[in-house]
Amino acid sequence: MTKDLKNHNLLTQPEKTFSSSYYYDPDHYERELKAIWYKNWIYTCRADAFERPRSFKTFDIGSQNILVFKDDEGEIKAFHNVCRHRGARLVPEDEGILKSKNIICTYHSWCYKQDGTLKATSSKNNPEGFKFEDNSLYDVSLTVWHGFIFINLAGEDAIPFEQAFSEGSTDFKNWQIETLKVGSSLSKVMDCNWKIFWENFNECLHCPNAHKSLSKMVPIYKRSFMEAKDDPNWQDHVNSDDPKLIGGLRKGAHTWTSDGQPVAPTFPNLTDQEIKNGYNYSELLPTVFIVSHIDYVRLVRLMPLGPEKTEIYIEWLFSEDVLNNPEYDISSAVEFSKTVLMEDAVLAELNQKGIRSIAHDRGTLMPEEYLVFEFKNWVLNQLD
Amino acid sequence: MTKDLKNHNLLTQPEKTFSSSYYYDPDHYERELKAIWYKNWIYTCRADAFERPRSFKTFDIGSQNILVFKDDEGEIKAFHNVCRHRGARLVPEDEGILKSKNIICTYHSWCYKQDGTLKATSSKNNPEGFKFEDNSLYDVSLTVWHGFIFINLAGEDAIPFEQAFSEGSTDFKNWQIETLKVGSSLSKVMDCNWKIFWENFNECLHCPNAHKSLSKMVPIYKRSFMEAKDDPNWQDHVNSDDPKLIGGLRKGAHTWTSDGQPVAPTFPNLTDQEIKNGYNYSELLPTVFIVSHIDYVRLVRLMPLGPEKTEIYIEWLFSEDVLNNPEYDISSAVEFSKTVLMEDAVLAELNQKGIRSIAHDRGTLMPEEYLVFEFKNWVLNQLD
Amino acid sequence: MTKDLKNHNLLTQPEKTFSSSYYYDPDHYERELKAIWYKNWIYTCRADAFERPRSFKTFDIGSQNILVFKDDEGEIKAFHNVCRHRGARLVPEDEGILKSKNIICTYHSWCYKQDGTLKATSSKNNPEGFKFEDNSLYDVSLTVWHGFIFINLAGEDAIPFEQAFSEGSTDFKNWQIETLKVGSSLSKVMDCNWKIFWENFNECLHCPNAHKSLSKMVPIYKRSFMEAKDDPNWQDHVNSDDPKLIGGLRKGAHTWTSDGQPVAPTFPNLTDQEIKNGYNYSELLPTVFIVSHIDYVRLVRLMPLGPEKTEIYIEWLFSEDVLNNPEYDISSAVEFSKTVLMEDAVLAELNQKGIRSIAHDRGTLMPEEYLVFEFKNWVLNQLD
Repeated sequence: MTKDLKNHNLLTQPEKTFSSSYYYDPDHYERELKAIWYKNWIYTCRADAFERPRSFKTFDIGSQNILVFKDDEGEIKAFHNVCRHRGARLVPEDEGILKSKNIICTYHSWCYKQDGTLKATSSKNNPEGFKFEDNSLYDVSLTVWHGFIFINLAGEDAIPFEQAFSEGSTDFKNWQIETLKVGSSLSKVMDCNWKIFWENFNECLHCPNAHKSLSKMVPIYKRSFMEAKDDPNWQDHVNSDDPKLIGGLRKGAHTWTSDGQPVAPTFPNLTDQEIKNGYNYSELLPTVFIVSHIDYVRLVRLMPLGPEKTEIYIEWLFSEDVLNNPEYDISSAVEFSKTVLMEDAVLAELNQKGIRSIAHDRGTLMPEEYLVFEFKNWVLNQLD
Repeated sequence: MTKDLKNHNLLTQPEKTFSSSYYYDPDHYERELKAIWYKNWIYTCRADAFERPRSFKTFDIGSQNILVFKDDEGEIKAFHNVCRHRGARLVPEDEGILKSKNIICTYHSWCYKQDGTLKATSSKNNPEGFKFEDNSLYDVSLTVWHGFIFINLAGEDAIPFEQAFSEGSTDFKNWQIETLKVGSSLSKVMDCNWKIFWENFNECLHCPNAHKSLSKMVPIYKRSFMEAKDDPNWQDHVNSDDPKLIGGLRKGAHTWTSDGQPVAPTFPNLTDQEIKNGYNYSELLPTVFIVSHIDYVRLVRLMPLGPEKTEIYIEWLFSEDVLNNPEYDISSAVEFSKTVLMEDAVLAELNQKGIRSIAHDRGTLMPEEYLVFEFKNWVLNQLD
Repeated sequence: MTKDLKNHNLLTQPEKTFSSSYYYDPDHYERELKAIWYKNWIYTCRADAFERPRSFKTFDIGSQNILVFKDDEGEIKAFHNVCRHRGARLVPEDEGILKSKNIICTYHSWCYKQDGTLKATSSKNNPEGFKFEDNSLYDVSLTVWHGFIFINLAGEDAIPFEQAFSEGSTDFKNWQIETLKVGSSLSKVMDCNWKIFWENFNECLHCPNAHKSLSKMVPIYKRSFMEAKDDPNWQDHVNSDDPKLIGGLRKGAHTWTSDGQPVAPTFPNLTDQEIKNGYNYSELLPTVFIVSHIDYVRLVRLMPLGPEKTEIYIEWLFSEDVLNNPEYDISSAVEFSKTVLMEDAVLAELNQKGIRSIAHDRGTLMPEEYLVFEFKNWVLNQLD
């Protein structure tokens, strides 16, 4: 490493990608479900999706179906959606209102309290040695963060939620995201492994060619860089205000919309720096990244559907006032970022297709792909 | 076990169900096909389905296709539907009339007699060492019982048919079932493992909630019991005539129809007890159970289509006179039991869905589920 | 072996076919892809399908996608269609014109020369130790024979193309096939393993029963023989001119068309013997056989799509003059051979269906199936 490269972000030697089979082998996929998706915090939906006590929704994570509901005290809870008796699906519907104060299995009417403890079986005489306290619903950890509900199937082994964020994530406290509402959402199934999409997210080498409108909006992306320190000569530009060199939006643009103009008033508590940034990232592997702008917030969730199938789900969040006021039009915010994500989806599917070549085992990461390398190390660490 | 519980049916301690993977693992499913479905007597169809000599039908059991036909002497025979030459499907059609006295393979015209022995190949010169007697069609055992055709792929290792009935099965001789005809039939594919359906069949804990009309018709079912001895205090009721305590139909009902009234005359040779019972069961694992009433007989056949896919097929049998006489209307018999079975199918699919939970491995059998426990032991014994 | 059988083609003792699992086991299928399909010469398309420099097509062989294109010097080249960077599909379209002189990956714009060498990456600074010469496109061998393009994924280990022909193949030089054009083509997916079709191709025991019109056209086929020496008494007929004994077309027929009459003028350079033969075979395992007649040439290509799924693709080739002249009608040539191949497809699917029987493991090859035996040995030799 030469001296003038010091403290830049770039990789200084070629690194290898995962072996190809990591992207399609069904057994490896099962290993990743168990070691990663069933151990980390996974986004489900916004807390306000539960309108009143006993509202419930069920969510699939890999092969697991989870029941999430609001209890009579207004607290949101999660359990594996399975009865302890003979393993039947406890609540068969996708969403709705629980039929009674207790959660009663459709099959044999085992009856659980809202805290998951077994209250009654349907047997006239419970057998000797049968312990109610050993037959509670299976716990799922749940936390609500800025109005986003995350669950974790690891139970007591779940890492603290605060430690789940990737380094450099924004804390978003000035956005008061807990007050925002979903103004638009979109789900798309991609024919690729979930890791392929994260790798794409973690580099901008593809930006100039693949994201024309985004690279115009964020000039440094057009240089294939994600931020100022991706340039080995970044120290020469520390006093520059040229977004091509230091990142940020193009001159005259304030947010990610078709024309760079906000679709809503600036959130009231943002700092000057947060306003100037134009975009602020936060990332919780393996499930979401969140990008906040001065006028809206966008969450993108991945969910693995199979070794070569992944759902991408996007929520655009706005203040309630904006959504209630017909004078505001959020469409240019939605369209701009939707275009970028659909461009990425096409590339992710192309990458998946190529990975099957018997001639190719591991690719080579280039200097700008330092976050792809970090992601790879995160995955390997989880699998250990 | 306390003294007053003596001789009741109930389990006295909690027992465990199968490990979850038994219900979905493809390798375990293959083991069960080989150890259970290819070793036991499997129901195909009624003997009168073969109207004349050379009539044939083919049946799938797991991945096996079996040819069943009536020979020129009127005897019904079964062979694996495969030619000894290069393994081609011997008779390609699902059913029909054999094209000639001999069974001739469509591919290379190898010609077999109706007893399965090879009569001729199409080669001008059979090779030295080729023995016709070693190239007969592969035998499948077959028996006709009360007009029901059962086959067994175990060949010489097949257990005697008489030993195939579960304990407590009715012998049905007074019904003269061999004279009855199929008045209605129904096939439905369920998304569940075949064992899930048998487990459902073997307990009535789900009856009060799931089978409203049936529990009204058979009052003891409403108590989650299958019969009098499911009650630990059964000895107190030995002199009762209350069907809620001792089993049997509700007062005023005589058979399983929508209103409890028979759709046809009572079969002439039934004993008073058989008439009074209202329903009489017989069971041949893994394939059928048969229920006889005073006016009709119902057979339910399971057939595994995959680890998580099972066909349920039902035949309703009536006397020929009833079917020929337009004054009789069998629909309320068909509808009543069809409703019950469709209610069970819904529950079986719910059970299958829940079984995938990583949190849940083995459920707990309650006292009333003693027959589920027996079924489990039968399966484990077969797998040994 | 008795003396009078000397030099005939027939097997003199019963031989066994493959074990059944060779025809459906997914793991064995993968072994065959690697040992056979990725090691031998595989037909793609005619050379004239590439109309001008930079024309390209992509082809799937098993799970492999191969890019074939004409370079600016007019040479046809093939590479694995995958970028060395992160394994993306290099050229996403099925066919078209390359967008520039160089081959540029859609994902990160890695740029390869037409000879496959890496010319540029999109990184501003390639990492230390990154060698362009180690990042060329993955080579695929290619040869053009009589205008047919064959590729071989074995790279340097590819056997010389000349050694790929089965014994007894015609060299076709007098047909000037390189000047012929595709007048008609047809693709059909069969539910069978690829080897089942080759086995069918390699014997005529099924001809009398399955191919009525063909057996009339080629009388020796009606005897279940492929050629004169299939008859143990062939030496008695060496001076005969009866096609039933020595092979060839029926009296009055000159080619394989519905009425035996040519649909086009006889190719000008054929020898008397080639004209008299009526049909001349050439075979390149595992992918094609070619049959030439006096007026047209037919190529049949197999491509495995799965353990129990195979594509059959047929091209009928005629002189350009014939195709350009509306007075010629090629349909009776196309229809005649299409009928024969569709008859074979039905039999191949029947054979596949039967092979699943647990009772049947290996069939018996009869004397006339000597080429099926040779094919089996070829496969086993490849797998070694």
